[in-house]
Amino acid sequence: MLREMTIDECESLLRRHRHGHIAMRDAEGAYLVPISYAYAEGAIYGHAAPGRKIALMRRWPHVAFQVEDVEHGARWRSVVIRGRFEELQGEDDQFRCRALLLKAFEGNHMSLTAGHGHRTTLADAVLFRIRIEEMTGRAENM
Amino acid sequence: MLREMTIDECESLLRRHRHGHIAMRDAEGAYLVPISYAYAEGAIYGHAAPGRKIALMRRWPHVAFQVEDVEHGARWRSVVIRGRFEELQGEDDQFRCRALLLKAFEGNHMSLTAGHGHRTTLADAVLFRIRIEEMTGRAENM
Repeated sequence: MLREMTIDECESLLRRHRHGHIAMRDAEGAYLVPISYAYAEGAIYGHAAPGRKIALMRRWPHVAFQVEDVEHGARWRSVVIRGRFEELQGEDDQFRCRALLLKAFEGNHMSLTAGHGHRTTLADAVLFRIRIEEMTGRAENM
Repeated sequence: MLREMTIDECESLLRRHRHGHIAMRDAEGAYLVPISYAYAEGAIYGHAAPGRKIALMRRWPHVAFQVEDVEHGARWRSVVIRGRFEELQGEDDQFRCRALLLKAFEGNHMSLTAGHGHRTTLADAVLFRIRIEEMTGRAENM
């Protein structure tokens, strides 16, 4: 049976995972890439080298973010978020974000820097959060 | 090591999977949902109930589509496509698309109709293909 997930179930899935998908507007339509993230304090935290996706999110900050569990085509859970990209620029915010990502990834920089774009170090990366404006979850037989 | 995938590797991943992610522009920014699909004849084929994502793709047909293998944060493959949504409206095109989806899903309607939106039958669904305009793949330790 397909059913709506509760907010608690959505948050639990977001907390358990470190791999999601982010979509943003581009000049023609939309662009979409996988990203590493950590869910904390009610927001999605991430980092990236200054490249295509960062340029797009700076210009069009309304983004969508999705995380899933897929066992097979008839047994899965998926959470879709619509939210706003916020670049973290103050020293305090950046420090907190780096600490939060390092903790979430247990210091594993290889996992932390995974992505379609250019490889970067956490020290040089653009740090950001997605402030959640709308969140829905669907589960099929889970 | 992070590396670019060849076109053959990208196609092989697209052929092997039935579950992907599709992003499209919306009024504010972008929207993103998981979808079932089949890769055939150089295009992504799918279907959906007439709902939010279909309305958005009709209005803004430039979409992005992504499929991945993720073993863990440091071992994954991902293919990102940019392309154009084309609704299949002729009877011949619709017949071919239904046949192609049924074959790809081995007649399993449960898997075939998985998605965030409303449940539909293949007979009532909007049938579409994404014509591929750009395709890139990245692999990390795979």
